[in-house]
Amino acid sequence: MKKKSLPIAGNSFMIIGGASLVGTATVEEMLKHNPRRIVILDNFAFGSRDAVVDDPRVEVVSGDITRLPNLLAAMEGIDGVLHLAAVMTISMAADPWSGLNVNIGGVQNVVEACRVNRVRKLVFASSNAVYGYGPGVVGSLVEATPFHQAGAQPAGILYGASKIVGEQLLRDAYQRHGQDYVILRYSTVYGERQHYRAANAKLIMDAFDSYRKGVAPEVVGTGNDTKHFVYVGDVARANVMAFEADATDRTVNLSGPDTVTTRELINIVRDVVGSDLEPDFVPAPPGKVVLAAGGEYRIEHHAAKEAIGWAPEIDMRTGIRRLINWRIAQEQPSTTQI
Amino acid sequence: MKKKSLPIAGNSFMIIGGASLVGTATVEEMLKHNPRRIVILDNFAFGSRDAVVDDPRVEVVSGDITRLPNLLAAMEGIDGVLHLAAVMTISMAADPWSGLNVNIGGVQNVVEACRVNRVRKLVFASSNAVYGYGPGVVGSLVEATPFHQAGAQPAGILYGASKIVGEQLLRDAYQRHGQDYVILRYSTVYGERQHYRAANAKLIMDAFDSYRKGVAPEVVGTGNDTKHFVYVGDVARANVMAFEADATDRTVNLSGPDTVTTRELINIVRDVVGSDLEPDFVPAPPGKVVLAAGGEYRIEHHAAKEAIGWAPEIDMRTGIRRLINWRIAQEQPSTTQI
Repeated sequence: MKKKSLPIAGNSFMIIGGASLVGTATVEEMLKHNPRRIVILDNFAFGSRDAVVDDPRVEVVSGDITRLPNLLAAMEGIDGVLHLAAVMTISMAADPWSGLNVNIGGVQNVVEACRVNRVRKLVFASSNAVYGYGPGVVGSLVEATPFHQAGAQPAGILYGASKIVGEQLLRDAYQRHGQDYVILRYSTVYGERQHYRAANAKLIMDAFDSYRKGVAPEVVGTGNDTKHFVYVGDVARANVMAFEADATDRTVNLSGPDTVTTRELINIVRDVVGSDLEPDFVPAPPGKVVLAAGGEYRIEHHAAKEAIGWAPEIDMRTGIRRLINWRIAQEQPSTTQI
Repeated sequence: MKKKSLPIAGNSFMIIGGASLVGTATVEEMLKHNPRRIVILDNFAFGSRDAVVDDPRVEVVSGDITRLPNLLAAMEGIDGVLHLAAVMTISMAADPWSGLNVNIGGVQNVVEACRVNRVRKLVFASSNAVYGYGPGVVGSLVEATPFHQAGAQPAGILYGASKIVGEQLLRDAYQRHGQDYVILRYSTVYGERQHYRAANAKLIMDAFDSYRKGVAPEVVGTGNDTKHFVYVGDVARANVMAFEADATDRTVNLSGPDTVTTRELINIVRDVVGSDLEPDFVPAPPGKVVLAAGGEYRIEHHAAKEAIGWAPEIDMRTGIRRLINWRIAQEQPSTTQI
């Protein structure tokens, strides 16, 4: 029987969208496991060349997943592909045409390039957006939870549906020609090198920016809505474990140890920066992308333990402290960390 | 306030995928209402030129929705567009790449061509596939029911997700630039000019073909699973009513008066052809596309009554009799009808 494990040691990997938050953390994690080579493919629409670690085993290729020839060429000799590149909800709202071309057409191309180059294993970053948005999203979200759209805005539904399509293209490739794969449904990722593109993670950054200015953060909503984040270092470990585990044709959630409410989240940021200003919770302005679920929910991660041996290690207080220390170090490299 | 009704009388319409089962019936229905002009755009991948009615107001244009310039040119001077063209589950299973290009890329192009040509109203044929497949699909299916995928095959999920994306592209166009639209989620359509492409409607045709050969039909499954069909003439009326109703930004189900089990369906075919052979229910062969829901379900159509004034009129026994009479007339034009 075919072995489904792809060890990092001695093998060559491509990380598509590798100049990103998750990509850069995954490169660091992979390098601990002695890969032969890591190729980062990025179109640098969002990723930054500065974020890529300087290591002789790491190579950067500028390319775009909407152009199949870019992928076919860059994937030669690659054993494992981690596909991270995607347009998220805020960008999907701005331009759904391009968003679908990247999130659906891009996966079509990645799957085809993997087939042509006989890539042994494909790990795909999906999202808890496959459970949808709106009041239907409550309770325990497991891998079999359906996709809720009632009461949600087009951009969120398009993003979630595009991830569902991506997942099924991998399942189809497995059934059609035995492409081994693991799908990881990330919850909201946060951590060092955090960007401002994801509607939920942006909350942390915006609150931090306010507190640094000495201003009480203004937060849309009641503050009582649930969020479930996952620390970027935990996600990086999961990506590595998905390759190394003897698992294929599996789809599992990644989420942090616990949920938080928006109010708790802002309070953690406040505690870490050492402010006593209370946040202002305000109604959503018209037209703003708000990704609120209906009530209390929790993204379960037991299946990831069973399939690839993964469980989250970093709680939100620790993770936010790391994120904020990174952010402060960026601004003023000589400042003492919190 | 802007009037959302687009009367058929005196206006020009395009039916994309118009040489189809639903398209040809809709042309017939529209012609009763005195349109100025009907342009049928079809790539004739599935549709037939022979199926298009001979009428001076009806014009046929060969074109493909995956090529935006085809649509931009053909849509000049059109007031209302009915978008029917889609790849269904069986073809999606054979070639998901092309299926997604048609069902998602095609809608992207249709929406853009409507915007450029200032089309006043767009009616989009969606599907009950937006409620998904597998054991989760039970009970009363209303417009807010989520999309179930657990236990379903990639082709069905891809088809359903592609329809969800299409729907949201219309909602997005409405929010972005006021494109009026009505989305009709068809259940399985059957009737005169029935094809063999839809996995569920194919049941009727295959059973009929068996009975005509004097052979008991072989049917996959237990026979106890629920189906919900809608007669093509009822769908054609709904398409016309969606244009004429003072409704926009609405998404509603279309379904027949009642559900049937597969066994009841085959028995209706048997009664109509006058056979006494009992069907054989057999297990699914590996790899076959089976679109079974989990148990009893019913696609509710109350919202269509409220939004566009529509309710189904033709029950399955009447509809199947019409379908079979059409089929017999095709074979032997001189034979007495049943």
